[in-house]
Amino acid sequence: MTRSVQQYLYLLVLLGNSVGTCGLLFNVTDNGQGFVVSINNIQLLEHTKSSPLLFVGLGLTLFPEDSGNFFIEDYTSARIPLADYNITCDQTSCVLRLSAGETWVSLLLKSERSQPLVLSIQDSSHDFDRTWLRVKAATNEEIYGGGEQFSYFNLRHREENKENVFPIWVREQGVGRNKSTMTTFMADIQSRAGGDYHTTYFPQPSFISSRHFYVHYDGFNYAELDFSHEDFHEIYVLGEISRFYFNTGDNLQELVSDLTSFLGKLPELPDWIMRGAVLGVQGGTQVMLDRYNYAKSFGIPVASLWIQDWSGKVEMPFGKRVNWDWTWDPSWYPGLDSAVRNLTLDGVKVMVYINPYLREGGHLYTEAASKGYLVKNSTGGVYLQRSVTLVFASVDLTNPSAFSWYKNVIKTNMIDFGFGGWMADFGEYLPVDAKLFDGRTGLEAHNEWPVLWARLNRETVEESGKLGDVVFFMRAGFSGVSNFTTLMWNGDQNVDFSLADGVRSTMYGSLSMAMSGVGLSHFDIGGYTTVSQLGLVRSAELLLRSAEMAVFTPIFRTHEGNQPEANVQWYSNTTTAAFARLARQFALLKDYRKSVVAQVSRVGIPAMRPVCLEYEGTPATATQYLFGPDLLVTPVYTENVKDILVSLPLTKGYTWIHIWSGTAYQGGQTVNVAAPLGEPAVFYRSDSAYSSSFEKLRAESSEVNSIIG
Amino acid sequence: MTRSVQQYLYLLVLLGNSVGTCGLLFNVTDNGQGFVVSINNIQLLEHTKSSPLLFVGLGLTLFPEDSGNFFIEDYTSARIPLADYNITCDQTSCVLRLSAGETWVSLLLKSERSQPLVLSIQDSSHDFDRTWLRVKAATNEEIYGGGEQFSYFNLRHREENKENVFPIWVREQGVGRNKSTMTTFMADIQSRAGGDYHTTYFPQPSFISSRHFYVHYDGFNYAELDFSHEDFHEIYVLGEISRFYFNTGDNLQELVSDLTSFLGKLPELPDWIMRGAVLGVQGGTQVMLDRYNYAKSFGIPVASLWIQDWSGKVEMPFGKRVNWDWTWDPSWYPGLDSAVRNLTLDGVKVMVYINPYLREGGHLYTEAASKGYLVKNSTGGVYLQRSVTLVFASVDLTNPSAFSWYKNVIKTNMIDFGFGGWMADFGEYLPVDAKLFDGRTGLEAHNEWPVLWARLNRETVEESGKLGDVVFFMRAGFSGVSNFTTLMWNGDQNVDFSLADGVRSTMYGSLSMAMSGVGLSHFDIGGYTTVSQLGLVRSAELLLRSAEMAVFTPIFRTHEGNQPEANVQWYSNTTTAAFARLARQFALLKDYRKSVVAQVSRVGIPAMRPVCLEYEGTPATATQYLFGPDLLVTPVYTENVKDILVSLPLTKGYTWIHIWSGTAYQGGQTVNVAAPLGEPAVFYRSDSAYSSSFEKLRAESSEVNSIIG
Repeated sequence: MTRSVQQYLYLLVLLGNSVGTCGLLFNVTDNGQGFVVSINNIQLLEHTKSSPLLFVGLGLTLFPEDSGNFFIEDYTSARIPLADYNITCDQTSCVLRLSAGETWVSLLLKSERSQPLVLSIQDSSHDFDRTWLRVKAATNEEIYGGGEQFSYFNLRHREENKENVFPIWVREQGVGRNKSTMTTFMADIQSRAGGDYHTTYFPQPSFISSRHFYVHYDGFNYAELDFSHEDFHEIYVLGEISRFYFNTGDNLQELVSDLTSFLGKLPELPDWIMRGAVLGVQGGTQVMLDRYNYAKSFGIPVASLWIQDWSGKVEMPFGKRVNWDWTWDPSWYPGLDSAVRNLTLDGVKVMVYINPYLREGGHLYTEAASKGYLVKNSTGGVYLQRSVTLVFASVDLTNPSAFSWYKNVIKTNMIDFGFGGWMADFGEYLPVDAKLFDGRTGLEAHNEWPVLWARLNRETVEESGKLGDVVFFMRAGFSGVSNFTTLMWNGDQNVDFSLADGVRSTMYGSLSMAMSGVGLSHFDIGGYTTVSQLGLVRSAELLLRSAEMAVFTPIFRTHEGNQPEANVQWYSNTTTAAFARLARQFALLKDYRKSVVAQVSRVGIPAMRPVCLEYEGTPATATQYLFGPDLLVTPVYTENVKDILVSLPLTKGYTWIHIWSGTAYQGGQTVNVAAPLGEPAVFYRSDSAYSSSFEKLRAESSEVNSIIG
Repeated sequence: MTRSVQQYLYLLVLLGNSVGTCGLLFNVTDNGQGFVVSINNIQLLEHTKSSPLLFVGLGLTLFPEDSGNFFIEDYTSARIPLADYNITCDQTSCVLRLSAGETWVSLLLKSERSQPLVLSIQDSSHDFDRTWLRVKAATNEEIYGGGEQFSYFNLRHREENKENVFPIWVREQGVGRNKSTMTTFMADIQSRAGGDYHTTYFPQPSFISSRHFYVHYDGFNYAELDFSHEDFHEIYVLGEISRFYFNTGDNLQELVSDLTSFLGKLPELPDWIMRGAVLGVQGGTQVMLDRYNYAKSFGIPVASLWIQDWSGKVEMPFGKRVNWDWTWDPSWYPGLDSAVRNLTLDGVKVMVYINPYLREGGHLYTEAASKGYLVKNSTGGVYLQRSVTLVFASVDLTNPSAFSWYKNVIKTNMIDFGFGGWMADFGEYLPVDAKLFDGRTGLEAHNEWPVLWARLNRETVEESGKLGDVVFFMRAGFSGVSNFTTLMWNGDQNVDFSLADGVRSTMYGSLSMAMSGVGLSHFDIGGYTTVSQLGLVRSAELLLRSAEMAVFTPIFRTHEGNQPEANVQWYSNTTTAAFARLARQFALLKDYRKSVVAQVSRVGIPAMRPVCLEYEGTPATATQYLFGPDLLVTPVYTENVKDILVSLPLTKGYTWIHIWSGTAYQGGQTVNVAAPLGEPAVFYRSDSAYSSSFEKLRAESSEVNSIIG
């Protein structure tokens, strides 16, 4: 038996049941032994007796947590292939009934107009607690996305020690993230905080295939994306599935853009933050102003001073921590109100810091606790958690009163104070046994938490009439965060050149986010995580290599790191002049940057783009990227390097101009170019409308090396 | 419906079908919703809809190998609970038909006379490649055995970071075996050789429960014993199961003894090897004799000189290796033939070394290859493997001609030469894709290999008429090795006090072997694995602490380790006198030792016994043990310790005499006793027939501390 169900829903309104040649949305071919679902001749799903589309099962999954690190233990006792099937189609949809004995699932396959194909669960025998869906795979197929992935760009990478399974669980990304490194080993044995190749603040159950389709799972369940198999990809969902989206596209860019059409597009960044450096400083009003004046004296264009410690510091075992009690601390920042006013007049915004947690015993904690606004534990008390030594509770973002109250904290204490934005940190720690106001458990809401946190910030900004002016930036994320956040950053990198967690991992993070539909991200220049006891401290070279890449990104922001005194800073004697030059380069690109960032909001095309997104067929790596359509960037993330190999994509009708020398190169070749400090390998398209801006950078580039010796 | 099938097979011959009160063998109680199988009212198996007895499944399991380390990757795509059941019983057996749709398994439950209950597979739908059997579990139940386990004695230990799953796969045990230690970390990143809590040369799919039953899986399949669940234990078998044995007993000792009744009992050790030290020396005839004379000059009673390098040494990258070409090397050991004769006259045996592998290019390799006696790879060529830098092939032990030929090598080159025994090393490396003479793959024969290797050695000894005289000792094992081997040793410990792989891990190894029915084991005094680059070298304290424990074991054998020059040795200036005193203590215990060892062969009760084996209710640990019925030993495996806490089992009618002070203690208390170097915490039963022997040790114990300072 061969049965073909062709659906032309786009024409359906006009043509009724007839078959046309345009608007074909999906196709189900059933040969009696199994079926194939395809869109535009791209086979997406396949069902055979031996490799069924769907498996359901039972088991026990635990999520022990410590300081945002989760140690997931997953035991599956039953895993039933739903081998029997029955397909019923009408003009608009198909129902796939998949079963094994008394266990069954009814899936609805439906597509409307130009929307993605939606596979959703209609009903089931409800006798299972976990589900696996297989997506057809091909030899040599590559997979991109998965949210923010720091270790791999192609998630189906086939290296010797296979790491092709990506758990989808919001959490701390870890220290080192590579079980073969001493840093991770030490972090693991000291505090189980080392992380692994897949740990990330922002996972997302979405991926794009080099075969020109995407898959998005629309649900907050714990999930795993398994790309380790030859013939199929497998998506594991803890619980029943809600719905999957599938679509094909003519090219990867179309797919990325399409993802953003339902996952959300970020708003445009305001001009002010793209004009100059955001300098991460701390230590009180006077230090802040001293740093500012020092920066000005070197000609650093300053967009903002970002003070994470505006709410004060508290003594903790093992050192001071920012006081998680989100109110101006006038003893720590005396006269901050007038300083903010004066800086604003000087064209400089002050940015601050908040997260969704409240320090136990703080004023806001006490108020929230008395109002019942904090997440509860299983016995109804406040759920106390810890971030290393700091004990805190989470505001219950599912409680509308708490949500409003916290919005008001931000509005009153931060926006009305005159701050230009903030880091909206954290969001990953919700434990699975938490009891939430809306009746859900932490397990159900865990992955949604960053999205709620983003929504809270966004609504506050919008209700204050400040959208397009105030900027908040987040590290935690999940599907839909792009509907709310104004900017992402890559979280806490180690202050080194290591794979997996050094400064270069921001490229992996940003490019995988780009393939997940999130097109605006940036990073702490020079990294964050410092462990001076292990010799993990920031060098001048690292700071400047990182800053020289930041020139070619949306935002140029520094962070002193968690041990400021152990790190080289932009205000260290040896680096300020070179840093100032890079900051000026950043400012010189503002017009081009604005056009690039506008595309994120308008079309959904990311600012930092994997090369393959513009030039398909080019090897998909995260060693180089395009900043917008015109700039090809190969950062230097190896110590003591003076030159670097660059693969120039094949072009037609234009050449690649090396930005620092002006030399033109034909595309389609690999070239070795000089890349001394201050001059990462950057090329622009000879036909770029911004050629004259790019040429201006050359003047700022000279002699950076001589400055730092 | 309630149905009870009671079987009194013991009486069946006499009584036919009638029901009696003695000889009850097993009982199946079926309530229509499920059933329970019990023996003597101990519930062993339970089947309910939600927790069925059996699961079957499909998947893909890979066993990549490197130098005997295996990196098992196991993917299960289907795992079907066989929830439906049907029971048919006759007078002698029951057939359990378990099914889910078209997938079914027929199990035969049968017990004959006083034999264990056997659960075997009769037939099945054959549409699966893996099986899981659940055994009923109880809260606080403890589990012992699993072959030789180095990290845990109670395999159901419930520590925070759960490690309750024990893969059953013969392999290298690894270096460090603890992912939290620097040693393991370095071994892993340098050569993936670090091992883990479960890696062992000698796993065995057998365990004994504190609820007084045992389970033994009689098959060579890859398996896993999973003790991480509250209500059940789960035994995973790759492939279809062959058969399980179950039995209950009045106490643990009865269970251990019963296990040996079908797994095999070791033969009695000859007197000569229990009379004095087996000194591991190497470097040629003259060095051997010099060491011997030096030992004699200190009054060390020498049973044997063990020369692992009798076949010569070959230069390899990274150092010399023993020449795996099992023939006397007269250039390396000139005059060895006459030296062996002279030493024999002096009452000293020379022992040597062999393994089942042949160095590529050696004489035996060339002969074996020409005869087709070597294990083949998938394309029919010789399967070359490596042990770090040494390239070798395995003799195909499934080829009867190769088996005979290799026996003849041992007979001619070793027994006829006059050697008193040998280390029969290795046996763990058979790769799964090997093609064997008997038609099996390496996967099918992998776990059996050590048993074949043991059988080859045993048959050679027996056919030479030397059983009870020649001793060979093995590290690799699997179910049935105890039918053939004459002695086990614990393999390669690190030369340190670390958990999991330091010298103390030999206690875990020996006591878990004891609970698996293998009652004769010993260890390299002072450990073996030395990594001087990492500071992992043997101290005098370690050597002597290890030697002082060996006094209270069957065999007292030294090994110089893999970097002899980096380690303190018994012949080092600072240690010989103290070592000699310990060797004399060992010799003083020969009568008691002989009685203890005899029990292993006659009753199946191990020489080194977990305390709980004699005194049930005593906490089951591997920090102390009984050597035979009369000696309670608490070795000191912490540096710089002068005293130690000892739990004295509760006794009736006798007290515990501290062997070094003569002080009597009532049982049932914890006491702190002095334990300086040379005096581990050892107590004997006041009613022991060997009291006078024990008292003689006291004279030898004094002043050990002052000797080494």
